[in-house]
Amino acid sequence: MPSGSGPLAGLLVADFSRVLAGPFATMMLADLGARVVKVERPDGGDDSRTYGPFVDGRSLYFARVNRGKESVALDLKDPADLAVARSLATRADVLVENYRPGVMARLGLGWAGLQPLAPELVYCSISGFGHTGPWRERPAYDAVVQGMSGIMGVTGSPDGPPVKPGVPVADLSAGLYAFGAITSALLGGKGTHLDIAMYDATVSLLEGAALSWLATGQDPGRIGNAHFAIAPFDTFSCADRDITVCAANDVLFGVLVTALGVPRLAARYPTNAVRHEARAELKAELEAVLRTQTAGHWLDVLSAVGVPSGPISDVAEAVGSEQARVRNMVVTAGGLPVPGNPVKASAYEDPAVRPAAPELDEHGAGVRAEFS
Amino acid sequence: MPSGSGPLAGLLVADFSRVLAGPFATMMLADLGARVVKVERPDGGDDSRTYGPFVDGRSLYFARVNRGKESVALDLKDPADLAVARSLATRADVLVENYRPGVMARLGLGWAGLQPLAPELVYCSISGFGHTGPWRERPAYDAVVQGMSGIMGVTGSPDGPPVKPGVPVADLSAGLYAFGAITSALLGGKGTHLDIAMYDATVSLLEGAALSWLATGQDPGRIGNAHFAIAPFDTFSCADRDITVCAANDVLFGVLVTALGVPRLAARYPTNAVRHEARAELKAELEAVLRTQTAGHWLDVLSAVGVPSGPISDVAEAVGSEQARVRNMVVTAGGLPVPGNPVKASAYEDPAVRPAAPELDEHGAGVRAEFS
Repeated sequence: MPSGSGPLAGLLVADFSRVLAGPFATMMLADLGARVVKVERPDGGDDSRTYGPFVDGRSLYFARVNRGKESVALDLKDPADLAVARSLATRADVLVENYRPGVMARLGLGWAGLQPLAPELVYCSISGFGHTGPWRERPAYDAVVQGMSGIMGVTGSPDGPPVKPGVPVADLSAGLYAFGAITSALLGGKGTHLDIAMYDATVSLLEGAALSWLATGQDPGRIGNAHFAIAPFDTFSCADRDITVCAANDVLFGVLVTALGVPRLAARYPTNAVRHEARAELKAELEAVLRTQTAGHWLDVLSAVGVPSGPISDVAEAVGSEQARVRNMVVTAGGLPVPGNPVKASAYEDPAVRPAAPELDEHGAGVRAEFS
Repeated sequence: MPSGSGPLAGLLVADFSRVLAGPFATMMLADLGARVVKVERPDGGDDSRTYGPFVDGRSLYFARVNRGKESVALDLKDPADLAVARSLATRADVLVENYRPGVMARLGLGWAGLQPLAPELVYCSISGFGHTGPWRERPAYDAVVQGMSGIMGVTGSPDGPPVKPGVPVADLSAGLYAFGAITSALLGGKGTHLDIAMYDATVSLLEGAALSWLATGQDPGRIGNAHFAIAPFDTFSCADRDITVCAANDVLFGVLVTALGVPRLAARYPTNAVRHEARAELKAELEAVLRTQTAGHWLDVLSAVGVPSGPISDVAEAVGSEQARVRNMVVTAGGLPVPGNPVKASAYEDPAVRPAAPELDEHGAGVRAEFS
């Protein structure tokens, strides 16, 4: 979305964040119309400029999350550069940073120091573990937080090792919470310090697994592709490949077993509580039928009667789908192909061509002149 | 946060959503001070009231995502009840629904019909695949979308099957995008129809895996616990158990190999590009050292020099940690233990005791009187 055309047009964001969680949050703000000025260190800038994959020598990683932002290179240990940074920070509506707790304050850019000068500033810190608690100083990247949050502990089969979800869910969930927290704080109209922890964000995703532990004190362990509260809600083997099938209430379960030609199972497993308790046995009953035909056959049958089900796709099938194309989920930024924005709002455009991520210090002269 | 005390105090949300993605979004709004009126069907209400785990006969699943909301039971096929629903919808600031596309319109509650009566209404639809595209009518639950989004295709080991992340990431990411989209739209001040798809949300999380496919046209497959762009950034075996270690730039890599007593590796693997290309060989080199001592030993060593690293925790260790306690990441809602809110804002309270989720139609009389 071109700057100025989204719901956040007119907003100025001072972005001191690097790599992923912070830049992902400010990408959402920029996509929705905010002006985002990204402050980078002069010697190479954001680390993610060196992360692949590369197209024509340009990092797609950097291009994706920094599209539509301005870049200024500032040495925050140099007084003149620091003055520019402080001017930018105090004139901004929003500041985002993801240094370890204490670093911004040591640079003269902490919340407590800026707040008297910019009483309405929404100052969003994103860190691994937050600004309070015994782990606050602990350095963190996505995989460290995934490991400590329990999300790896609940991913994988019961008889296998913990598995890391193949996407950076700690960074991205923290970025998404930050996005909503920043816009909520702006609506509230009070200056505030938002303290978003990747750890909190990831723990909050545990859902059924966390509830199971809170209810019983027993660790839920790993249950493969099954669901902690609902059955059948899992992957199932057909003659050729696996599919997902989700019958999350009694009506859908009745439709499912009728479509599979085993309506007697509706009476044997009448409620979700019964089905979930007996889910291994139920899975075997259902697979005994499903294995007699191909995945394609059963997906047609289940689709015709409205039972939620689907194939298990690879990235090429998923990102390359007609659905993703129609939904504008692959766009270009400066000519490079990158994922689109899931926020589709009828009152605003969702352009397929977006502005490029900046070269290091591309907007340096203008930003220095404006914030001096 | 008691209704009225957060940044969204004064906001009225008409909530026609069920189960998870929609209720998770409106939970965020309620936690931050909005008044959320949940419309449920009279015969049993939200399906998730029947989902475990249960404490004293009450569903923790329901209690967690519906805390602090009001409930009114309305039969939307009854003209008098529909009139209440329409009055609520047109007087609300925000409407959230997660029916399949077309269902709300058939009930007389579609965006196009309400918009002339409520020109500033932010109307947020959350669905499996969105309101456009060939899959728009396809029924979906979390696991179906996870399977089709590619996220299972990139989770697990290269020689094993696709694995579903053990948390409902399709529902929750859609809920988080909806949260930020709604608050952004409110800032924009224009009535708008937000069309949030669980599919779009989950595809947008693929990050490195999607970028790899976009850059090369080759499906990235599964790479276990490694990272698509950075190395070393993985799990590693010590003498007793695995740990995560992330050295995402050259400086950290130098510190890491010095701490492990193999500084010669810094010259052999000087850049991230070299390290990522040779990540299997590099992992073997690092594990040859790590396997000589326990995880506890190495975490102490790496912590002392600031290399991001950590244990792989189960849910009990993660949710029961001192860090989670200090961060208020377990709260009570109506006396039941549920996960807290990751949005920590200095200008507002983050209470450890939150209002209960409602009984079905608990607020029915008041809501009917108010919106008649």
